[in-house]
Amino acid sequence: MKKISILGSTGSIGTQTLDVVRKNPDKFKVVAISANSSVDLLLEQIIEFKPKYVAVYDEASTKNLKERIPSHINIEVLSGMEGLKTISSLDEIDVLLTAIVGMIGLVPTLCAIRNGKAIALANKETLVTAGKLVMGEAKKYNVDILPVDSEHSAIFQCLNGEKNKNIDKIILTASGGPFRGKSKEELLNVTKNEALKHPNWSMGRKISIDSSTLMNKGLEVIEAKWLFDVDYKDIDVVVHPQSIIHSMVQFNDSSIIAQMGCPDMRLPIQYALTYPDRMLNDFERLDFAKFSKFTFEKPDLETFPCLKLAFDCLKMGGTYCTVLNAANEVLVNEFLEDKIGFYDIPYYIEKTLQAHNSIEDPTLEEILEVDRWAREYVKKSIK
Amino acid sequence: MKKISILGSTGSIGTQTLDVVRKNPDKFKVVAISANSSVDLLLEQIIEFKPKYVAVYDEASTKNLKERIPSHINIEVLSGMEGLKTISSLDEIDVLLTAIVGMIGLVPTLCAIRNGKAIALANKETLVTAGKLVMGEAKKYNVDILPVDSEHSAIFQCLNGEKNKNIDKIILTASGGPFRGKSKEELLNVTKNEALKHPNWSMGRKISIDSSTLMNKGLEVIEAKWLFDVDYKDIDVVVHPQSIIHSMVQFNDSSIIAQMGCPDMRLPIQYALTYPDRMLNDFERLDFAKFSKFTFEKPDLETFPCLKLAFDCLKMGGTYCTVLNAANEVLVNEFLEDKIGFYDIPYYIEKTLQAHNSIEDPTLEEILEVDRWAREYVKKSIK
Repeated sequence: MKKISILGSTGSIGTQTLDVVRKNPDKFKVVAISANSSVDLLLEQIIEFKPKYVAVYDEASTKNLKERIPSHINIEVLSGMEGLKTISSLDEIDVLLTAIVGMIGLVPTLCAIRNGKAIALANKETLVTAGKLVMGEAKKYNVDILPVDSEHSAIFQCLNGEKNKNIDKIILTASGGPFRGKSKEELLNVTKNEALKHPNWSMGRKISIDSSTLMNKGLEVIEAKWLFDVDYKDIDVVVHPQSIIHSMVQFNDSSIIAQMGCPDMRLPIQYALTYPDRMLNDFERLDFAKFSKFTFEKPDLETFPCLKLAFDCLKMGGTYCTVLNAANEVLVNEFLEDKIGFYDIPYYIEKTLQAHNSIEDPTLEEILEVDRWAREYVKKSIK
Repeated sequence: MKKISILGSTGSIGTQTLDVVRKNPDKFKVVAISANSSVDLLLEQIIEFKPKYVAVYDEASTKNLKERIPSHINIEVLSGMEGLKTISSLDEIDVLLTAIVGMIGLVPTLCAIRNGKAIALANKETLVTAGKLVMGEAKKYNVDILPVDSEHSAIFQCLNGEKNKNIDKIILTASGGPFRGKSKEELLNVTKNEALKHPNWSMGRKISIDSSTLMNKGLEVIEAKWLFDVDYKDIDVVVHPQSIIHSMVQFNDSSIIAQMGCPDMRLPIQYALTYPDRMLNDFERLDFAKFSKFTFEKPDLETFPCLKLAFDCLKMGGTYCTVLNAANEVLVNEFLEDKIGFYDIPYYIEKTLQAHNSIEDPTLEEILEVDRWAREYVKKSIK
């Protein structure tokens, strides 16, 4: 029985994780769940999964939840960052599944690592912001970082039984998002509703916008660098609009191993929880009669400058990726609130990067400070 | 330094194996080579690779070769089946690469297994004819059977680090051969020259004809059953005309792992010789800009009845696969000599299968006897 704590149980990945748990009550037990403020759904999850702990980030929502939990239910209700840290390092858990959105996942993830918990990582911003630090700690505490992103799970599966020294390059596939094939001119005035319509995946709002700018792929490139310890030069992005091949690894002997399947996030979630084993499920099987054509094309870095910015930050190193991520988090939020245009996202990210004085080998405190600085700088810039 | 004996060094796989050895003289040493009767090429190979042994199957060719070997070269020249058996079980070799064509490879392969030699297997007829027996012996003598066929090498690579119990199905890809998309009516009068023109691979004559009838895929289905210990129901064939994905494995959690690359037999050859490691080489890398479209379709069992016959034989078990292979070997030869038509191949195979009394769990002697019977039966039938 694997005991799990979930950061972000009410989001897209969180609810799909609970679906995997629901179907395998003999294999998995949810010990703790958490959310920012979705009290209604948290309450439903508490009643169904009976966790021993719940953490609510937002203080008012914590109060609201406390008042609404039926009296016969025995659960400890925690709040704020302290609450997230507590449920990430509980003695009784084996694995922390972190499906929270944004770099807010960083500190709880480090807590879990330092307490020897395996990490099932769906929160890519953690590694984008502080990849070197997090992977260093994971190594120090001998903890597995199990990727939940479909691309990184694919790469992780392709590397099964292989030696890292034989990796020639990692080939991340990208659907191309809802705006694939469009020109910059056509996209100047797109709205958030157009950007939110992903062709293949149903996801949260932040990642959907990131997919439309290709920043999501950029963040994944950075995440891949840290997860698989490869140079940025050895990571390629190939646009594959059908989203069947989830990613690939090319080895030094020219052999490419690819992982594929119908787009269903429950597969990488389940794999992270059962690794190194696999487990039977009823997910849709790929039907080659239905998916009879795979195509590939180069990403368009002119139309989607965010992807290029991510590669640039990875190349420059230091705290540039921290700034990239912080600025992007703020700008996506502003775009979702109709306060800025689509191309303001890369514009203000670049502006912030230019103003930044990078720190080599930053400490956690320095990373948090750079993150704060970048958010403030962006907010001031767009005023 | 891995010491290798090669059965069939003058054929397509044999010469490509020597190319891998040529480029890695610090890693591989050829101790013995063999051929049926290609004396000119054997002589060149003897001068270049300086093996300690050479075996020539044909007696007259043995004599011819002996006379032509320069006097300063120190080599033992062997002949006939005894010669093949001797070079398959030499004390000084680590691995037997069997690239001979036809079930003639069976006895030497068993010899090698019983002497604890790893088998790099490019001779699929061995497992088609006597899969149960060969795999049983390999298990008994704790010997690795390393597939060299591109499809089986692909599957073998996909199974790296995975558990056999988690295999849901094996998906063998097929190019479809030179006659893909044609109807039976269009193929009634095709010639051997049309059949020999494979779209993607340059191969020997026998395997090229087998590819044109899809019998090659049928033999591979049978080979896969024995190599990977799966039920015939768990093997699918998908036509993929670009021959980039060399085969795939679908696991019980719905995840598919695929192996791909440019069509180059030197990759599976090298992999069999370096497994479980990989080794840098200069083989062409897959360029997704060049191979930007993969397609998939169902095999046409009406136009290509040989594939269905192979599945039927696998289902029926016993010695039906031995008969299928023996009849096919004879008929392909007759077709190559312009003595029969394209559809006479499946017609006479089916006729022979119908006349056969199958033996469950046959001994080697019974297999050899069934093989003899089938060859004679076919030859008499077509007179």
